[in-house]
Order: sequence, then structure tokens, then C-alpha cells
Amino acid sequence: MTDQRTSTVITVLTAPGEPEPPGLDALRARGEVRMASDEASLRQTLPGTHVMMVTDFRTEALAAAWPEARQLEWIHATSAGVDALMFPELVEGPVKVTNARGIFDRSIAEYVLGTILMFAKDFPRSLRLQQAHQWQHRDTERAQDKEVLVVGAGSIGRQIARLVSGIGMIPHGIARRARHDDPDFVAVHANEQLFEQLEQADYVVIAAPLTPQTEGLFDARAFGAMKSTARLINIGRGPIVRTSDLVEALDRQVIAGAALDVFEEEPLPAGHPLWDRENVIMTAHMAGDFIGWKRALTDQFLENLDRWQNGEELFNGVNKELGYAAG
Amino acid sequence: MTDQRTSTVITVLTAPGEPEPPGLDALRARGEVRMASDEASLRQTLPGTHVMMVTDFRTEALAAAWPEARQLEWIHATSAGVDALMFPELVEGPVKVTNARGIFDRSIAEYVLGTILMFAKDFPRSLRLQQAHQWQHRDTERAQDKEVLVVGAGSIGRQIARLVSGIGMIPHGIARRARHDDPDFVAVHANEQLFEQLEQADYVVIAAPLTPQTEGLFDARAFGAMKSTARLINIGRGPIVRTSDLVEALDRQVIAGAALDVFEEEPLPAGHPLWDRENVIMTAHMAGDFIGWKRALTDQFLENLDRWQNGEELFNGVNKELGYAAG
Repeated sequence: MTDQRTSTVITVLTAPGEPEPPGLDALRARGEVRMASDEASLRQTLPGTHVMMVTDFRTEALAAAWPEARQLEWIHATSAGVDALMFPELVEGPVKVTNARGIFDRSIAEYVLGTILMFAKDFPRSLRLQQAHQWQHRDTERAQDKEVLVVGAGSIGRQIARLVSGIGMIPHGIARRARHDDPDFVAVHANEQLFEQLEQADYVVIAAPLTPQTEGLFDARAFGAMKSTARLINIGRGPIVRTSDLVEALDRQVIAGAALDVFEEEPLPAGHPLWDRENVIMTAHMAGDFIGWKRALTDQFLENLDRWQNGEELFNGVNKELGYAAG
Repeated sequence: MTDQRTSTVITVLTAPGEPEPPGLDALRARGEVRMASDEASLRQTLPGTHVMMVTDFRTEALAAAWPEARQLEWIHATSAGVDALMFPELVEGPVKVTNARGIFDRSIAEYVLGTILMFAKDFPRSLRLQQAHQWQHRDTERAQDKEVLVVGAGSIGRQIARLVSGIGMIPHGIARRARHDDPDFVAVHANEQLFEQLEQADYVVIAAPLTPQTEGLFDARAFGAMKSTARLINIGRGPIVRTSDLVEALDRQVIAGAALDVFEEEPLPAGHPLWDRENVIMTAHMAGDFIGWKRALTDQFLENLDRWQNGEELFNGVNKELGYAAG
């Protein structure tokens, strides 16, 4: 790592049309900042760039402009998922990748707990009855003692486990390796145990990264393994779920409901059959986005940039073989 | 207390039209069971009755038929609130009253936490956007570190404090007496501190019994003391809130929202202005009513009946001076 303290060139890659992230003044105090939002502008800014901050978690521009990234040493993604960056030239090359591990944990875990309690207490139906001015008493479920299977035991999955434990639910995890003395989960089971664990769970939460191993993992066969009373919650990435299989599983009452913050296609098209399902809770890829999140993301990058400029080790390093920040 | 082991006469007072509670076979094994559901039938069953189980928490029949209750020794209410029983002849006489303390705690606390997370994450708006097939990203709040003021530190209020603590919120309580070494609350403040505590809270939860002291306690003045960003949650009794003042406080943005399970008039009339408010979450007096609640209530009464028939002390005794079961 060269000493870049005075002459660091930093390219910030945003989504097309996205406003400039907050906190860039602090960034400009640390180096030359260049803005890009598509392949053409990126081809302009990449030559000479040492460091990138990528806020567009869906970007295809970087792979396209990659031949220009000759001086690039490090890419920081301001997202938990780095799937859009895992193209072969970057994975196989020497450029380091870090991510926003930690920033979204709490808000996503609160979101997940909120959807669990909405299912248990039948709140979506109460809101529809309210719109119709209808008073209708129902008996509802308790969340206590119900089992939550969290697929992906990273920092988001662990925070989910802590919050559901806090209200007396039973968290199990799925990860690469099984662990039986885990501080957050009753037990962490290995990937190979997924299907037998799906049979036990009342709530199945997808908190996994999108990788070749997880893409399409939740298909008709996975839904068939779940309890007919179980609900699926996806706050990971849309393509981990085969949406057409999910619609069919909901139609045939193979599972009881779904809460979805992420989709195979985003925004979800207005004509999609999911919108009208009464047993589906849908939000616009926003579960983690608490008020102040963008500034928090810049601040986290600045902290890592200080380390880089001081020649210290970066935190939140992504294991490019695995496709996520591994502990 | 006379030994009634073989000859106990038990009147079960239900609401008019309410089906027979589950578990009465077990009750019939312990004495003669008589059913009543209004003043006329109650006047038939009360003479000779030693014990009553009252499932109608709104009953006015008992006060009306009271002169017939000459052998009555004990009334068990299968509700947390016993306000309908606190008529002068019963309060001033020797008949014991017990209640369903404990049964509803967990389900009500889960309900309260659910409404808090719905407010924080703006879920009611997400559900309306979903109905309109609209994808609309918003930044939302974190519940973590927000202050919850629980008015009423009985068993329900304490369970609420435990659950909100479990997700990192800060619970304060209001009770008759202040306590600073409380196991569940950061601090319990005395009734006299209500208004200064209302100024601090992000969520105000009414978990108090309906008594002459709490009736109408939440009026324009109380809402005026609350933060304009605060939400009110009422799972206590409807008449603790002046509904017309609440509607005005919501209209004028004096407070930010309300979640209401109980109302001054139940069912709430179909033409009431509360139904259409987008910052109000409404349910039909069902927050505590988990699947299996009626059987759990009968079982709790049977447990106390066994004590009574064995000449042992009853649990869940109501302090008739205060109008609730006081610890």
C-alpha cells in the first residue's frame, strides 16, 4: 500500500440521477474527489483513481469500465450486499473490497421484528378493516416461543437473532459452518441442514448475501419444506427467491405469508401479482434505511479511508471468494 | 370462609349472546354451575350462589341484581380490568374480587411492540402504497434508544417494559409511588410526575385501570404536554382517553399518531372520524386475546377455585379501594 495521504484520488460512483451523498466535504479534505454515475463518466474518472466509494449497489458500470481502473487499490461499497461487484476481473485481481457491514443491522432487525408482530397480530387485516370502518374481533397469535430461522448468520442475521430473542422467540441460524455454542443463536446449522431446519421454523428470514450459492435458493422445493403456517421474510436480495415459485406457494397455501423488502426486479412492476396479495407485506427496498443512513455510510467510509491513508488495516474486508464480509 | 367443597354454587355471568366459555366441564366437577347473561337470568341464579365467574367485563347486570347476592362470597373477573364491578355495594361489602392478572400480559406487550415498530417503520403507509401498486422508498425511524412511558406499572405495564427493553428502548413508568431501583423500568415516577414525563416520551402507552382517577386523564391538556412527534398507544380502557380531544390533537398535529385497541364506545360507531385517520392504528379490543385465551381464563379461575374450596388464600385479589389488583 503506497502512502496516499496527500494525493489520494477518490471516485464516488452513485446511481444515475442519485443526489450527491452527504458528507463529501469531509471527503474532499482527504483527497481529490471525482463523481461518476454511469459507464461514460466512470471511464473519465477511473484513470488515476486510487479509491472508490460505490453507493449504487446495482451498478453494472464498474465492470464495463474496468479496463480504466489501472491505479485502483480499494473499493468501498456503501451497502451490505456486494453482489454487483463480484465480477471475475475484480474477484481475481488485487483490488481490496470493503462494505457497510454494521450500519443497517439494527434498523433491518427492527423491520424484521415488526413484520413478525404484524403477522402474529394480523395487523394488515386490521388496517383493511379500519379502512372499511369495520369492527371485527379476532383471536391472534403470540410470537413468544415461536421459532425463527435466520438464513445467513452475518452481522444483520445476528442482530435479528438478538432482537427476536429479546421477546422470547427461538432463533436458529444457517451458515457455512455449524456452531453449537453460539452467543446469539440457539444453534447455527450448516447450509446442508437448511431443508430440515425449514421444516421446524415459524418464520424464515433471508439475511444472506446474493452469491451463486444463494441465487434461487428459495424455490418451490424450499417452500414445500416449510410449514404451511410459516411466513417468509426477505431482507437479503431479491434473486435469492424465485418470485414465480413464491407466488404459486402463496396461492396454493404452501406457506402462510411473506414480507418482502427486496425483489428480483426493482422497482417491482405495477402489474405484478404480488401487490394484491393480502398475506404479503411489501416495502420498497428500505428496511435498513433509517433517517440519517446516508451520512452514516459516508462517515463509515471516512473512518476506513483514514486507516488506508495511515497505512493501517481496513475493516469490513470482503472475502471475494465468498462474496461477503466474513466476520 | 365456609367449607364449600361439595356444595359450591357457581354462577357464570357471560355477556348477552356470548357462547358458553370453554372448560366448564371441569367447573361442573367442582360444584353446581348456573349460567346467566343478563339481569333477569342473574336474579334467578344469584340466590344460593357462593362464587361467580364474570366474563362480561362491561356488565351492568350484576349491580342491578345485587340484592339477590346474599350468599355470594367471591367474584372472579376473567378480565384484567374490573371497573364494571366497582359499584358501591360491592366495594363497601365483604365479597372478595379477583381478576385475570397475568393472562393477557404477554400478548398485549407484543401488540404494543408491534404498533411501535409499525409507527417507526411507517408500515401503515407501506400497506396503503401496496394497495395502490406504488413503489415508494422512504427513510424511516429506528426504535432503538427511544423512550417509552408506560402509564400503569401493573403486570401488563411491566411486561411491556421488558419487551421494549429487549429491543433497546428506554422504558419509564408511572404508578402510585415512585421507585428508582425497579427491575423492569429505568425509573417509575409517581402519578404527580405524569405531565413532566409526558414531555420526554416518544411513545406513551396507557396500561392503567379505569378508575375515577384515570377516567378522562388523557385530555387536551395531556396531549399538549406530549412531544409533537410522540405516539399514544391505548390498551387500557377507552374512557381513560377523551376521544374528542384525541381527534382534535391528531387533526392539529399536537401529537403524531395513536394506536387504539379500546374506545369510549365499543364497538366504535361506523361513522366515527377516527376510522379514516392515516396516523391511527385501530383494533377491536383484542390486543390481549391470543388463540386459546378463553380456556386459559377458565383454567386460571379453576386454580383459584381449588384454593377457595381448600380454604386457602386466593391469588390475584383486587384492592377494591384502588379498583385493581395491586401487586
